[in-house]
Amino acid sequence: MKEFLGDDFLLDSDLAQVLYHNYAETMPIIDYHCHVSASEILEDKHYENITELWLSGDHYKWRAMRSCGINERLITGDASDYEKFEAYCAAIPQLIGNPLYHWSHLELKRYFDYEGVISPETCREIWDLTKEKLAGDDMGVRGIIKKSNVALLCTTDDPADSLEYHIKLRDVTDFETQVLPAFRPDNAMKIQNAGFRDYIIRLSRVCGVEIRDFATLCDVLLSRIAYFDALGCRTADHGMDFEYLFDGSLSAAQAVSIADVSFKRAMAGELIQNDMALAYRSALIRVLAHEYTKLGWVMQIHAGVIRNPNTVEFRRGGADRGYDTMGTFDIRTLADMLDALNYENSLPKTVIYSINPNDNAAIATLIGSFQFTSDESEGLCNPMKIQHGAAWWFNDNKAGITAQLENLANLSALSKFIGMLTDSRSFVSYTRHEYFRRILCSVIAGYVERGEYPLDIDTLAQTVCDICYNNAKDYFGFKLI
Amino acid sequence: MKEFLGDDFLLDSDLAQVLYHNYAETMPIIDYHCHVSASEILEDKHYENITELWLSGDHYKWRAMRSCGINERLITGDASDYEKFEAYCAAIPQLIGNPLYHWSHLELKRYFDYEGVISPETCREIWDLTKEKLAGDDMGVRGIIKKSNVALLCTTDDPADSLEYHIKLRDVTDFETQVLPAFRPDNAMKIQNAGFRDYIIRLSRVCGVEIRDFATLCDVLLSRIAYFDALGCRTADHGMDFEYLFDGSLSAAQAVSIADVSFKRAMAGELIQNDMALAYRSALIRVLAHEYTKLGWVMQIHAGVIRNPNTVEFRRGGADRGYDTMGTFDIRTLADMLDALNYENSLPKTVIYSINPNDNAAIATLIGSFQFTSDESEGLCNPMKIQHGAAWWFNDNKAGITAQLENLANLSALSKFIGMLTDSRSFVSYTRHEYFRRILCSVIAGYVERGEYPLDIDTLAQTVCDICYNNAKDYFGFKLI
Amino acid sequence: MKEFLGDDFLLDSDLAQVLYHNYAETMPIIDYHCHVSASEILEDKHYENITELWLSGDHYKWRAMRSCGINERLITGDASDYEKFEAYCAAIPQLIGNPLYHWSHLELKRYFDYEGVISPETCREIWDLTKEKLAGDDMGVRGIIKKSNVALLCTTDDPADSLEYHIKLRDVTDFETQVLPAFRPDNAMKIQNAGFRDYIIRLSRVCGVEIRDFATLCDVLLSRIAYFDALGCRTADHGMDFEYLFDGSLSAAQAVSIADVSFKRAMAGELIQNDMALAYRSALIRVLAHEYTKLGWVMQIHAGVIRNPNTVEFRRGGADRGYDTMGTFDIRTLADMLDALNYENSLPKTVIYSINPNDNAAIATLIGSFQFTSDESEGLCNPMKIQHGAAWWFNDNKAGITAQLENLANLSALSKFIGMLTDSRSFVSYTRHEYFRRILCSVIAGYVERGEYPLDIDTLAQTVCDICYNNAKDYFGFKLI
Repeated sequence: MKEFLGDDFLLDSDLAQVLYHNYAETMPIIDYHCHVSASEILEDKHYENITELWLSGDHYKWRAMRSCGINERLITGDASDYEKFEAYCAAIPQLIGNPLYHWSHLELKRYFDYEGVISPETCREIWDLTKEKLAGDDMGVRGIIKKSNVALLCTTDDPADSLEYHIKLRDVTDFETQVLPAFRPDNAMKIQNAGFRDYIIRLSRVCGVEIRDFATLCDVLLSRIAYFDALGCRTADHGMDFEYLFDGSLSAAQAVSIADVSFKRAMAGELIQNDMALAYRSALIRVLAHEYTKLGWVMQIHAGVIRNPNTVEFRRGGADRGYDTMGTFDIRTLADMLDALNYENSLPKTVIYSINPNDNAAIATLIGSFQFTSDESEGLCNPMKIQHGAAWWFNDNKAGITAQLENLANLSALSKFIGMLTDSRSFVSYTRHEYFRRILCSVIAGYVERGEYPLDIDTLAQTVCDICYNNAKDYFGFKLI
Repeated sequence: MKEFLGDDFLLDSDLAQVLYHNYAETMPIIDYHCHVSASEILEDKHYENITELWLSGDHYKWRAMRSCGINERLITGDASDYEKFEAYCAAIPQLIGNPLYHWSHLELKRYFDYEGVISPETCREIWDLTKEKLAGDDMGVRGIIKKSNVALLCTTDDPADSLEYHIKLRDVTDFETQVLPAFRPDNAMKIQNAGFRDYIIRLSRVCGVEIRDFATLCDVLLSRIAYFDALGCRTADHGMDFEYLFDGSLSAAQAVSIADVSFKRAMAGELIQNDMALAYRSALIRVLAHEYTKLGWVMQIHAGVIRNPNTVEFRRGGADRGYDTMGTFDIRTLADMLDALNYENSLPKTVIYSINPNDNAAIATLIGSFQFTSDESEGLCNPMKIQHGAAWWFNDNKAGITAQLENLANLSALSKFIGMLTDSRSFVSYTRHEYFRRILCSVIAGYVERGEYPLDIDTLAQTVCDICYNNAKDYFGFKLI
Repeated sequence: MKEFLGDDFLLDSDLAQVLYHNYAETMPIIDYHCHVSASEILEDKHYENITELWLSGDHYKWRAMRSCGINERLITGDASDYEKFEAYCAAIPQLIGNPLYHWSHLELKRYFDYEGVISPETCREIWDLTKEKLAGDDMGVRGIIKKSNVALLCTTDDPADSLEYHIKLRDVTDFETQVLPAFRPDNAMKIQNAGFRDYIIRLSRVCGVEIRDFATLCDVLLSRIAYFDALGCRTADHGMDFEYLFDGSLSAAQAVSIADVSFKRAMAGELIQNDMALAYRSALIRVLAHEYTKLGWVMQIHAGVIRNPNTVEFRRGGADRGYDTMGTFDIRTLADMLDALNYENSLPKTVIYSINPNDNAAIATLIGSFQFTSDESEGLCNPMKIQHGAAWWFNDNKAGITAQLENLANLSALSKFIGMLTDSRSFVSYTRHEYFRRILCSVIAGYVERGEYPLDIDTLAQTVCDICYNNAKDYFGFKLI
């Protein structure tokens, strides 16, 4: 029996232990997609207590607490911070096999040197210990990032964002982690949403240009891309809860023309029908992807979520409160989009994430249909242009990570994988990189242990280090040592 | 190498053995969904021979025999009982890895103390042994149930059923197992079926009310629900071979109005089109689910089967003969239904079963979008209201059970799971609870063995006992010690 | 740690080793579906070098090289043969976990006695060794087939093919492997393709009949079936990239009538709409399947590929260059087709392959809905008529093979499985049978090792030998000792 959360946690062979402890463990982290706040980094925010750190915004934990039958008052209601933590400590022992069980204990161990087990009995002791430690000088947001060995992180930013905190952070001298923006134009895509018109007006104001038609919108977005690029941005991210229209039924010119009509109607407060919205989004993604390609940016695609399925809760408290759920997506629709963009020389480096484990095999195969090397390059081994992203959200657990890695190995070239990201709102989530790396080392060692790959330590170590760090650095084109 | 079907069958670690033998093994059974006959329990029926017990109605076995190339005469034809058993004994050795292999041997071992292996060579000896034992006083249906340590079972009953055997069983003094009805109104849903009109007439007669319109139908069904409830019923079951209409295209009032027109047309012998049938069923499920919610009943949803895909065989012999097959269902349709019911305060406790292993992850996630605790309750840990049911039908095998448990652990709270049911027509199927419990103990022990959960025997034992018995008792609200 | 590619490669228990080395290893191969060239067998072609053997036509390898970021010039471009092999040697170490890693090494070991590891460092030595060996008398195509212990192979042939090489091969005296044609009428199905008209004209010429209407087309195809049958053909193969129309919306007579109109329009150079093409194909498959049934042929169904998703590459270089990708298919559409054919007494023995692992469970279940034994037969154990084919294409790897076998065991009767085929264009792909057999032995031994099946060596050995050889022989009705 393995020690709970011991040094060799998740490392299921001697070789896995060697690969992790000698190579993966000390590699710096590139967190190329997360949701932390640049402003909190700038102010070096200190959290008051473990509830503020863990439970004030983490909808993964809220969802789990609800599944354990805990009353909403103790989750997002008016209970005290201590009561809420108590409720979480009552839930945790019931989460056997759930990644929250591992993440929560790993975070306590790595950031608070707590070696115990979370339970109602240890609730008070954990509360006191973490409260005391959080007050320490080195436990502000920047201290946590330093302790986590993060070389670079990308926040997630709206085109209308001023990026003022990113700019100020460049002048902070005693903080070496690069904090780059990432471009997330979802709000400009959501032409059917109630807030669309207001959003466009805000965007107009930020750019000092009145956006009256689709062409102007495109110009403004391109100018924002240039602005982001100048601040070191290397990637855009698209949350696709919808389907694009690339089945060949509409020419690019027709799509633009419908997009223009749709845009004007939406700005006039009219409701946009589904088919027009599809055409609008298809026209817009074309323009954006073309620009990403020109700049060498990476386009990340997060698709397949069913958002806000619970209307009662959505009306009560809005989005992102733990009610979203796992959908899937039609692989042919995705193939059609990649094909259309590729046909127009507008297919940038692209990362496709799977939220549903059922999609792993099809995605890991599809990426192989659009790999290409630029004409100039004569090198033998360039980066893999289209990537199957790390297991995402509901899929981001031991089984999901293992399945994504094994599918990629089976169906593509695992060694070229750009590896892990946190996708998190929390500054103590960097342990998810540790979690991923341990699983990665077990998967890779597994092939050798079973006699399916030779025991060539140099190549194996190189593969591990590449997936932990080098591949992401090269792929995004980050400027790091 | 493990002993075949030994004491530690399916228990793949020392801890799994401890959890099973010290805790799970002796917990009583709550079989909250099965298809056995209350009348056979009342008469304490004795089966003549193993063919009558095993092969007279079990379409799982018929299907397997056909896959082994056995002639239909020896399956459902006019061959003698012995010939049929002989054919089954010829098939069994070919079913390596199939749950029928395990279940058949477990049943022989537990109910007939037979330790051998089923094969053409042992056919006669098994036939003789089981014939002799079946004649024993303690091997009537009630004896088998007692031997199986069944605390409570729910049969599956039509609203038109008189439940006379359930009533009489309450007066049987020397039989302690509770036998409760469960409400299955599928026949009232099947407005496109040939037999619909006759069924409604029968229901009218049973209730002494002429059902002329949709409103009256609803009244009658509600009165039957009250009748079932008075006899201790705690659950309704819906076999959904179709999709409900909850995509927002129809208001509740519109659905009722279409339902009324559809109902009258169906009673006039007209064919009902698909869209009208969808509206009818949507209106009806709303009314029923609202009532289940009021009474605290559990709604079970069995969806995703392709029924009667083989027209030749359906015309030759009717339904339920081993020809149905595994489909899937659209998770968004299910999400829409839960949302609509929840919006109307009509979402009862609900169990969603997966027949296709591909659906596990999406179901285990979706349930988390609709968990809630009643406003009154202040307790920390109430039951999980929406459940991912145990692996069902074609999915009810070692791989399917393991996958359902691991998905639930990964994506929800395994400790809150209400556990196993037989879904069987046979009185010797209770060994499926043993089969499930052994796998459950291996899954739970696995997390500890791999260092992913601490070795806290009390919590682990509590979790096992809860899933085997306590959770179902509390969830359904059964009155048991 | 297991030795890389050692004697017990992929054999994960003692029993697996016994089953493989004592039984599976020496069974002859029946390769009932592959794409090798009868003409190359006749001429006993010798390959010049390893690039010609491995890289001149194998789009699996091209795809993998692209995923490793290798420039197209070194894959299908004008680089020298040595440069291309060098590029492959640079890619291979990056393919940990990929079946190409195993297959490539197995082929070097079995056909060239090379025990080393492929890498840039060993590139030259492998090049030289294989060049020398390929020049050997026993390393022509026939020598390779002999060395591989192939009893029989089926090529893949168009109805318009003359089969002249098959005829001549019958007179070759010093070559004992049977080389049979297989009937693949995909070109006659593709009524929407640009080349359809030309194809029909070619078919007309071959048969000396002008094909002016659908009825004549059917007559011609039936005559070609008779021609193939006379040359020993026992199977037809259908690549279904489309869906047939068997949802009951069209009668057989209506389909024929639309097929006739469609055919004439296509011959007149008109474009055929999707619904007419569906009707055409449905009418044609009915006619063909009816004939296969009469002759006792096996119909193989390869469905679920997304063909030519990359338009740029398709226009640049055509089909079959490594750009196709994994789709899926609707199980209900397949069920409808089987049902319609069965209803018309036109359902032949049928093999359904899964390209997407998600489809395994549904296929392994669906086949059980259409098993039947002919009325005449009274035997206990005939072949299983509808088969779940071996894991196909992107699914043809260790994980995919294991999943197909375990699903089949779980949901059907593994012992009745007809086993492996290469589906390959290469004469050194017979090692895929070895690869499959090793996995098969591990899967079967696994049940015994875990105590889920008794240690009955005779039955286990029989099962292994049946799946390796006997079942395919009996199922197809090949005339072999």
